[in-house]
Amino acid sequence: MPIITLLTDFGDLYPALMKAVILKINPAATIIDISHDIPPQNVRVGAFALMYATQEFPSRTIHVAVIDPGVGTKRRALVIKAGEQYLVGPDNGLLIPAARNLGDFTVYAIGLNEVYAAGLNEVYEVEHAPPKSATFHGRDVFAPVAARLSKDYNTSKFKPTGDFVNLDFGKAMALEGALSGEVVYIDAFGNIITNIPGSLASQHIRYGDEVEVCGQQMPFVRTYADASGPLIMVGSHGFLEISVREGTAARLLKLRVSDPVRVRLKR
Amino acid sequence: MPIITLLTDFGDLYPALMKAVILKINPAATIIDISHDIPPQNVRVGAFALMYATQEFPSRTIHVAVIDPGVGTKRRALVIKAGEQYLVGPDNGLLIPAARNLGDFTVYAIGLNEVYAAGLNEVYEVEHAPPKSATFHGRDVFAPVAARLSKDYNTSKFKPTGDFVNLDFGKAMALEGALSGEVVYIDAFGNIITNIPGSLASQHIRYGDEVEVCGQQMPFVRTYADASGPLIMVGSHGFLEISVREGTAARLLKLRVSDPVRVRLKR
Amino acid sequence: MPIITLLTDFGDLYPALMKAVILKINPAATIIDISHDIPPQNVRVGAFALMYATQEFPSRTIHVAVIDPGVGTKRRALVIKAGEQYLVGPDNGLLIPAARNLGDFTVYAIGLNEVYAAGLNEVYEVEHAPPKSATFHGRDVFAPVAARLSKDYNTSKFKPTGDFVNLDFGKAMALEGALSGEVVYIDAFGNIITNIPGSLASQHIRYGDEVEVCGQQMPFVRTYADASGPLIMVGSHGFLEISVREGTAARLLKLRVSDPVRVRLKR
Repeated sequence: MPIITLLTDFGDLYPALMKAVILKINPAATIIDISHDIPPQNVRVGAFALMYATQEFPSRTIHVAVIDPGVGTKRRALVIKAGEQYLVGPDNGLLIPAARNLGDFTVYAIGLNEVYAAGLNEVYEVEHAPPKSATFHGRDVFAPVAARLSKDYNTSKFKPTGDFVNLDFGKAMALEGALSGEVVYIDAFGNIITNIPGSLASQHIRYGDEVEVCGQQMPFVRTYADASGPLIMVGSHGFLEISVREGTAARLLKLRVSDPVRVRLKR
Repeated sequence: MPIITLLTDFGDLYPALMKAVILKINPAATIIDISHDIPPQNVRVGAFALMYATQEFPSRTIHVAVIDPGVGTKRRALVIKAGEQYLVGPDNGLLIPAARNLGDFTVYAIGLNEVYAAGLNEVYEVEHAPPKSATFHGRDVFAPVAARLSKDYNTSKFKPTGDFVNLDFGKAMALEGALSGEVVYIDAFGNIITNIPGSLASQHIRYGDEVEVCGQQMPFVRTYADASGPLIMVGSHGFLEISVREGTAARLLKLRVSDPVRVRLKR
Repeated sequence: MPIITLLTDFGDLYPALMKAVILKINPAATIIDISHDIPPQNVRVGAFALMYATQEFPSRTIHVAVIDPGVGTKRRALVIKAGEQYLVGPDNGLLIPAARNLGDFTVYAIGLNEVYAAGLNEVYEVEHAPPKSATFHGRDVFAPVAARLSKDYNTSKFKPTGDFVNLDFGKAMALEGALSGEVVYIDAFGNIITNIPGSLASQHIRYGDEVEVCGQQMPFVRTYADASGPLIMVGSHGFLEISVREGTAARLLKLRVSDPVRVRLKR
């Protein structure tokens, strides 16, 4: 059974319309929600969540991601084959970190004409008609493209391109006794996830070492239960994560997505 | 595979019990959440969400909707065949706008006796027993009726009726240089959705025209990216929708569901 | 089709990774969310929600529950066969009320060695490797164990044990003209659910009787619509539940989970 995932900033209700459209085109699809609570129009947070989640999915999973401030403008739609999986969404950088993380990837751009060539006349009443709305391409473009793709995994009707909007999470680095990076995600526990790879951190600190972040002392530990207050560790995504045992790191450190983070080493 | 959707004001936990009951009766059912975050007991908001979502689902989808302040009283349960789809829920108006929107519809009322005649003895331990609880008919009546219906789509055991609680979203009209209507839904972005049909609006305003709503000037545009502050447009549901680029319309205009809206034309 | 349910305090995003892992091991699984919004690390609330929800699921359902403050420590993982269903999660009491409620149950403890003997080398690149992370056993241990179990329902590779962390919701009792118990759950409507069984209550009060809780007078009724302000009744879970018609009981009575509750009888 083909798997199609959804990641959006739609909150409630709208995701159900994407699912309806998918099931109309491919009733055999298994639909999995990755998240619909990405902060509105925050492409960077969506890109991190997508990169993190996609790495665990089986081959041939098709991920539809829609954080799309430019909906209804001339921004293109993309289909990406990345490793053994597929990504569908707007050309605004949202898909790129996930694509890069999944392995070798090929980007296909879809202009509206190509949308219809891909078989979307199955979806729309009138062949070559524009999408039903200028504001909900999740329902009118991305979901149908993904559903259609899930029937044959055939990308030959799309046009490969090297020209797409890039996005990365900045360079993390070790410099002058500190690891420097930025906040890329804050989870439901208020844990702060940075762009500093665990592999970089472990070259400079060892379990039990004390570090300082935003004026707070905290140990570098293996898991949450290894400390009683603030702590820093390599999270399940492989990046440095700051947490507070029985507390909320984001509140204690007053950090938000995109804020810079300096982890000062105490050795 | 039969599709059964759920729309409730239950928030967390309770929807899972409806799903359990459905899968016990029809393990082949694909269950899709439309929303569980309708404001508590707000039948009007639920009715709009149901009307909007149902129009995209495939034939034979069965929608279970439970916003049910009268649970446990003598209010009846309804099964509606509307167009090629089915609706199941309480007789309080919740299902009616969706039914009307889906095409010709037939309303069947289910008294408790009929519930059991429909085969609910499969679900309850004792034939003709009352539902397990007087407070959770989503689990004890509506979910089992929908699951049972999804096995044969046979409505002949229900009694057609012309007597049911009606609900509509009021009349929108163009009068004295203004379009008048009311707020029917506010989405997760804070966008304000009115009951003023796009078809009515387009007889009176054109893209680029300025209008005034609640003392705010705003252009009538095609999509969100066409303005930099407040804007009004025909949303993906076909109704006038007020939005604020990188802001929250509901907060700026201080409008809530059921409030009247006047869109004053400036030409 | 095997059913696997998920109950966690993860909020957003992380549940999708558990689903990815499950579908990689058993693509035929139907995955149902019970809740991901249990208050962070609140094992008692999670235990009540699990107990309540599991009783409605079909035979052979496998429930994965992860409220896990001790993740990464030496706390063991459990698989429980309870009645005709299965429970998978940490050994911290979370699974026990559900197990007891489902009927006769057998507890199997899984040390890390046993995890791999159960076939987890399907999941991890290296046989007998430790889980990928010390912080996300939902993804790295519990989801894979459940998915593997859903392929053959074979528990013979696990070791039965009588030694596990217990949890119950305390004793409710009738004493000196009052029913005494505690708050076990507060739902999305703000309804207060106690540990006082309806069967105990109905020995002491009848529909229409007035009682007093936290200084508030309220009638004992059959359903929400039977009162106009605060009310008490036997909820759909079989326990005494305090509700406020068109209001929020938790706010009016200022009660929180684990607070004691005294229902004073007025006859």
